[in-house]
Amino acid sequence: MTKNSATHPSERPRGVFAATLTPMDEDLRVDIALLAAHCKWLLAHGANGIALAGTTGEANSLGVNEKIEMLDALLARGIPAEKLIVGTGCCAIPDSVALTSHAVARGVAGVLMLPPFYYKGVADDGLFASFSEVIQRVGSADLRIYLYHFPKMSSVPLSLDLIARLLKAYPDQIAGIKDSSGDWANMEAMTRAFPDFGVFAGSEAFLLDILQAGGVGCISASVNITSPLAGEVYRHWQEPAANGLQAKLTAVRHAFQSYPFIPALKGIMQQRSGYAGWQYMRPPHLPISQSEIDAALASMKTLDYHLEPISYAL
Amino acid sequence: MTKNSATHPSERPRGVFAATLTPMDEDLRVDIALLAAHCKWLLAHGANGIALAGTTGEANSLGVNEKIEMLDALLARGIPAEKLIVGTGCCAIPDSVALTSHAVARGVAGVLMLPPFYYKGVADDGLFASFSEVIQRVGSADLRIYLYHFPKMSSVPLSLDLIARLLKAYPDQIAGIKDSSGDWANMEAMTRAFPDFGVFAGSEAFLLDILQAGGVGCISASVNITSPLAGEVYRHWQEPAANGLQAKLTAVRHAFQSYPFIPALKGIMQQRSGYAGWQYMRPPHLPISQSEIDAALASMKTLDYHLEPISYAL
Repeated sequence: MTKNSATHPSERPRGVFAATLTPMDEDLRVDIALLAAHCKWLLAHGANGIALAGTTGEANSLGVNEKIEMLDALLARGIPAEKLIVGTGCCAIPDSVALTSHAVARGVAGVLMLPPFYYKGVADDGLFASFSEVIQRVGSADLRIYLYHFPKMSSVPLSLDLIARLLKAYPDQIAGIKDSSGDWANMEAMTRAFPDFGVFAGSEAFLLDILQAGGVGCISASVNITSPLAGEVYRHWQEPAANGLQAKLTAVRHAFQSYPFIPALKGIMQQRSGYAGWQYMRPPHLPISQSEIDAALASMKTLDYHLEPISYAL
Repeated sequence: MTKNSATHPSERPRGVFAATLTPMDEDLRVDIALLAAHCKWLLAHGANGIALAGTTGEANSLGVNEKIEMLDALLARGIPAEKLIVGTGCCAIPDSVALTSHAVARGVAGVLMLPPFYYKGVADDGLFASFSEVIQRVGSADLRIYLYHFPKMSSVPLSLDLIARLLKAYPDQIAGIKDSSGDWANMEAMTRAFPDFGVFAGSEAFLLDILQAGGVGCISASVNITSPLAGEVYRHWQEPAANGLQAKLTAVRHAFQSYPFIPALKGIMQQRSGYAGWQYMRPPHLPISQSEIDAALASMKTLDYHLEPISYAL
């Protein structure tokens, strides 16, 4: 197992990360076999890595032990730890510490950490103290945190000021951020303000822009279906062809944006693969109708983006 | 142990419920001895019951097992289960089920249930499915749910339409609501629309109004310091004296409202009791300064509301 403590920022995660969906059985338990097969498919089809237990993966609908078991089961099925960034940020510090310690011990490339997101309107001092407490309790030189900035979902934004303070206090632990604000100015500002801070855009629509600005890639829900094209953009990002590829990728992502992400993505995966494990999700998410799935697929086709059937290696 | 399944709505919890603070030690573990002493003090000084593990109790900064242990430890120290409404609503259904099943098995008067609060903008169908899934998995005729409507904190409001659907599907389980919206029109509308639905105002500023409108009382953070006066309003609510008492209670609550609730309440409790267990809280909450505590106490005094020293029976 590579010790992260030895890694230079240039060896840290880069490229296209799929925020993987979490397939479930009809009792709403995680379908590990299908999840592992999907992660392998993504890694073989353009994804450089997997963000496990993120927003798209219904992480906040899973309990702490479920998430620990899910990671262990994936590793046991051969998903390489160094390809994984794992969501570990919870409302309660002991939960974040348990998940983070476990993921670090397993040698993952990094953890994706939400701030505690129940209490709203807290000051930066309180958010700093939250991250600080987790870092100190985990107490590992191998810890690499990607902050998770998703103000529309968490309702707890992470300011540039807070990031600067965290980087100053924990330069080895604070490795980067996933910025799901959709606010390009914020992403660009971070790449300029913080050298060696790994900025992932939260959408592949910004993939070429963020790479050109000095960021490291994207971590995105829709990469579950756009990974082949997003991977192509990443492979060619320093070549003239990248602009045309990115334009198509952006169009596909934007067309998809009008559907509820988790239900629509799961519906499409079921349609493409025939696996029942894609049709289940935990409330408050509910499946969308077949006609909505058909409409989403049709909108992709009008963009000349064909979602081929998937045969998983299960 | 009284079986809730036998209780008529008129025998369900009524009156002034203190959303108790959770004292902690310097390692941020729950200080059970002080918590139990505080709950006993509240019950002896105007509170008809205790809301345990609510927003004020930093419930969402505690893990599932910590909350289970906290309830068991309180019961072991003699706090009567029938005086307790226990917060059990989490983001993940398995967590809500575990906490709710445990609380129901212990014979509490009810549970206070947040909707899953990470995913925003979900439809009522998804929220209905969330509550429904918890109710079915708990599968107990003794379950009495108080819905927790706190849109400013949870960012997931509970509509009248949703409540009507839940009441229709689960008339025995859906016992009432804590409405922390601060929106009087909403509280009043619920008392009119839903007979036998126990509406608790989320602030004692509405205590007399909600009782007169047919509601059942209040569950409030500031009752940690206003319980003697709030209890007086409740005892006399059908008498002319109630108006004057309520006016004073409302003034105290409003004066207090400008301070960050948890830090200010804990600071005041420390000042009044001398117990160190009140000065600790989990990030993202942080203690306020002595001068802020002094200012809060001074503002109470200008209202002729004197917060006497407390001697806990520890």
